[in-house]
Amino acid sequence: MPHKGSYEVTSKTTLKRYAKRAEYDRAVVHAILDEAFVCHIGFVADGQPYVIPTGYARDGEVLYLHGSVGSRMLRALESGGDICVTVTLLDGLVLARSQFNTDMNYRCVVVLGKARSVRDPEEKAAALLKLTEHIIPGRTQHARAANDRELSQTAVLAIDLNEVSAKVSDKNTNDDDEDYALPIWAGRVPLKLVPGTPVPDPRLDPAYADDIPEYILPYRRPTEKA
Amino acid sequence: MPHKGSYEVTSKTTLKRYAKRAEYDRAVVHAILDEAFVCHIGFVADGQPYVIPTGYARDGEVLYLHGSVGSRMLRALESGGDICVTVTLLDGLVLARSQFNTDMNYRCVVVLGKARSVRDPEEKAAALLKLTEHIIPGRTQHARAANDRELSQTAVLAIDLNEVSAKVSDKNTNDDDEDYALPIWAGRVPLKLVPGTPVPDPRLDPAYADDIPEYILPYRRPTEKA
Repeated sequence: MPHKGSYEVTSKTTLKRYAKRAEYDRAVVHAILDEAFVCHIGFVADGQPYVIPTGYARDGEVLYLHGSVGSRMLRALESGGDICVTVTLLDGLVLARSQFNTDMNYRCVVVLGKARSVRDPEEKAAALLKLTEHIIPGRTQHARAANDRELSQTAVLAIDLNEVSAKVSDKNTNDDDEDYALPIWAGRVPLKLVPGTPVPDPRLDPAYADDIPEYILPYRRPTEKA
Repeated sequence: MPHKGSYEVTSKTTLKRYAKRAEYDRAVVHAILDEAFVCHIGFVADGQPYVIPTGYARDGEVLYLHGSVGSRMLRALESGGDICVTVTLLDGLVLARSQFNTDMNYRCVVVLGKARSVRDPEEKAAALLKLTEHIIPGRTQHARAANDRELSQTAVLAIDLNEVSAKVSDKNTNDDDEDYALPIWAGRVPLKLVPGTPVPDPRLDPAYADDIPEYILPYRRPTEKA
């Protein structure tokens, strides 16, 4: 499985509008998937589409979806129906001189395909490690690994990264020519998901409650390490 | 239409899992919808579910969905199919002593129903005002309002807030009894979408480029004003 290059463009992943913002490059897609925390899973149950947020992690060209999955979703996903997994990072607000051109900057990945249930204990354990490391790199060296009972209680789903597209909007204001003369402040307001000070669990031994491990404070996302 | 009280619970909005986290209170739902910037719209086209992020704004018990809508989505939404609009706020990471209990805190609203196209010019203009004010309160007093040409170019969709549920997860670590003795730091890492310093548009008159209006700096979300 090649990790470089681009995803194949299909009729379903061809952007009909703002096509110039479409990205199929694996590196662009991977970076977005690795930075965000939450995906939105779209599936159909009894004809009704649902969109449910959940945790996930990427392992190469596989996306693992975490297991706090309602039974309605599990049933729908295991029945082999098509699903859509969307990951969005909001990067900022674009304040144009006209309300019409007011916009947002964002990066977004859309994955189409079918989910499979991860039942093999080894793959499931590896996926759970990835899911924990995705939330906070380094954590699996400290937190207790899942035991057999926990593994059997956890639902992990996988979707292959085959039919994938990204959309990246990173722009300044784009006003109509005649609007540039208007005496209105215009520009971008960057937005960023920022971690606050970690809050020790009330039942933590007071002896080391404030001794927050280095890998947690300062908290960093993988893509910010470089 | 009552603005107080709770949404009616239906078979589709009954949470099958973590039912204790379910919320149907209008005030809870409104606060989440008013704080977030982006919704994820789930719809079905040719049997394939899609999940697309877009801007939105609430006006009473109506959600207006913004118009950078691909033709695939517009066609699907206008065809009268069922849709799902989900809004998620990620509030933090929950670092438990076990990987199994590692989790995230979040607030999320799921709206089910059908979308209608807003074609009435007055309602459309009012919806565009709401969409701009949702991004940055106060902006419509400064930015140029949409003209007729822009109004006709914009697609605005509306969905009534009838079949609605929220899910709120705001917890400390919830470890197994025997795990509390483990010498592992546990607690919460709060996460917050924080605005950075506004970046003036390069074509802004240098005379007032750095004169950022008070309503933009410091930038505040409506729910943080109290």
